[in-house]
Amino acid sequence: MPHYNLALLGFGNVGRALARLLLRKQTELKNRYGLTFAVTGIATGRRGTAIDPNGLDLERALQIVESNGNLSAIPNSQFPIPNLDFIRHASAHILFENTPVAYDDGEPAITHIRTALENGMHAVTANKGPIVHAYHELTALAARHGVHFYHESTVMDGAPIFSLFRGALPAAQLKSFRGILNSTTNLILGRMENGASFDEAVQYAQEIGIAETDPSGDVDGWDAAIKVSALATVLMDVPLKPGQVDRTGIGGLTSGDIAQAQAAGKRWKLTCSATRTDSGVTARVAPELIGPESPLFGVSGTSSIVQFETDVLGQLSVVEDNPGPHTTAYGLLADFVNAVRI
Amino acid sequence: MPHYNLALLGFGNVGRALARLLLRKQTELKNRYGLTFAVTGIATGRRGTAIDPNGLDLERALQIVESNGNLSAIPNSQFPIPNLDFIRHASAHILFENTPVAYDDGEPAITHIRTALENGMHAVTANKGPIVHAYHELTALAARHGVHFYHESTVMDGAPIFSLFRGALPAAQLKSFRGILNSTTNLILGRMENGASFDEAVQYAQEIGIAETDPSGDVDGWDAAIKVSALATVLMDVPLKPGQVDRTGIGGLTSGDIAQAQAAGKRWKLTCSATRTDSGVTARVAPELIGPESPLFGVSGTSSIVQFETDVLGQLSVVEDNPGPHTTAYGLLADFVNAVRI
Repeated sequence: MPHYNLALLGFGNVGRALARLLLRKQTELKNRYGLTFAVTGIATGRRGTAIDPNGLDLERALQIVESNGNLSAIPNSQFPIPNLDFIRHASAHILFENTPVAYDDGEPAITHIRTALENGMHAVTANKGPIVHAYHELTALAARHGVHFYHESTVMDGAPIFSLFRGALPAAQLKSFRGILNSTTNLILGRMENGASFDEAVQYAQEIGIAETDPSGDVDGWDAAIKVSALATVLMDVPLKPGQVDRTGIGGLTSGDIAQAQAAGKRWKLTCSATRTDSGVTARVAPELIGPESPLFGVSGTSSIVQFETDVLGQLSVVEDNPGPHTTAYGLLADFVNAVRI
Repeated sequence: MPHYNLALLGFGNVGRALARLLLRKQTELKNRYGLTFAVTGIATGRRGTAIDPNGLDLERALQIVESNGNLSAIPNSQFPIPNLDFIRHASAHILFENTPVAYDDGEPAITHIRTALENGMHAVTANKGPIVHAYHELTALAARHGVHFYHESTVMDGAPIFSLFRGALPAAQLKSFRGILNSTTNLILGRMENGASFDEAVQYAQEIGIAETDPSGDVDGWDAAIKVSALATVLMDVPLKPGQVDRTGIGGLTSGDIAQAQAAGKRWKLTCSATRTDSGVTARVAPELIGPESPLFGVSGTSSIVQFETDVLGQLSVVEDNPGPHTTAYGLLADFVNAVRI
């Protein structure tokens, strides 16, 4: 029975949700896929590092970190070591890269993933930076080392998008896509429909932990542009940088605009789209008036949707409702299983 | 480079759409998947049978059948032979079973597929009968012979549903699903919203080739119940017969009901649902009033939708627009590629 050692680099909300999901699915993975695993390394930002080639006690690690302790309390744990040493010495077959995103250059996540792949490990991430800045390099590197670089949770959390095209849609050519991919702006626009001002809506999104302290990455359409870039880069095989996306945020929409749309039975949505052209891809993020006939109309709150036009099907849409760290964690688990199963 | 011989049993709209798609995708399959193929057998209902272990001229076969000729015009073709002899003697690695559906017992498709599997061939079908009546037997038989029995196109045409759970959603437990799976009734209800009477709407659906001469299979909810059974049987691993589905058709809906719903900003839809219980599955097909907040509201015409509740994601929905024989053919092609690729 194949046995895999896992290293978790990053142990925040997503990393810990992955740990809990691994514990919950341990028996099912064994029974359904003949897959067993041990977590041999956990590296946190501020709560220490633990490595044990025989497998760490994952429940204990969760307890320690969630009660603000330090992983040095775990037997055999190590003093803090640089992340690259952690990757090399965690005795792992799979690296889960869950460090914070850096949108400008994708580092240090790219270097983490590169190191894992060069050492013959599969690499799995929910981090969009490496996709936008180094997808082709990392995918080629993985192929050279006979391992996989998977990233399902980078767009629409754990909803299957990349694996859909990789597995379920062979020989399909993606011609264009369109969707709502940024949940923060979708939530803000929904709150404004319910009477909140723009500032109140942003504040609410911050209070529930969806928006950042500086909300401009969402409000100005950058997060959406990054997701469009990731989808185009991977699914259309055309490297597209976020700066190449024709981008308009929702900052220009007033409460009057929202009310006017509602009076006409419509809604403003921040839509994303990309279309393959003879020379590459044109992509756009902009507020758009949507009527009730469109599947985009009913996509509210933090839900998201993407509609794909291919050369083999009519339009195929995927909608995800109620995402959260647990669904991102599921995408990481699915990547793990799909990287190692035959 | 792996080379596969294909046998097409059934050469109607779907079988011919598959033939055209195979021709169109031949180069792409070779370049992207290292896959080459030859069609070594075609059996039609009334236009003869052709077998050639060296590969038939597929374009010529299409021309002959579409100009009402007989495949006996093809060199090396055979006199009509029984289907089971065709399966055994077509020198094929994959059988595409595209004979007409028999809802009551799934035959003769089940026997065709069983024969293929017993002879070490993969079997691919768009025929719901074998799923509802013999899914577990055929799947076990395929496993014993080291081949696959795939059936993506039995529900929602070529939209990836079964392959989604098989590949992209490992270790996901399906708790319930809900959707609009019968396009004929969805089209009829849409026409009635536009002012047609029930009879006029049925007649329109018949004229465009969507509804049968006897529309009761659709109107009474049988087709929807069969699809619910197929999804529950495969995705929940609980054999569910169409007769076990609590079923109400759309025949009781009057133009007044439709107008009343529209006045309230709502729509009648024939919805399907199934929920896992401690003892199995409860399933239902019935008309339901849907408001614009629901993703089901905008699913019009021949489009369809299914919403999945799993233990690992929030709600995940798949929507298919503009289906047709070409999309059913794509599901068959995808099954072929997924059956043989590693």
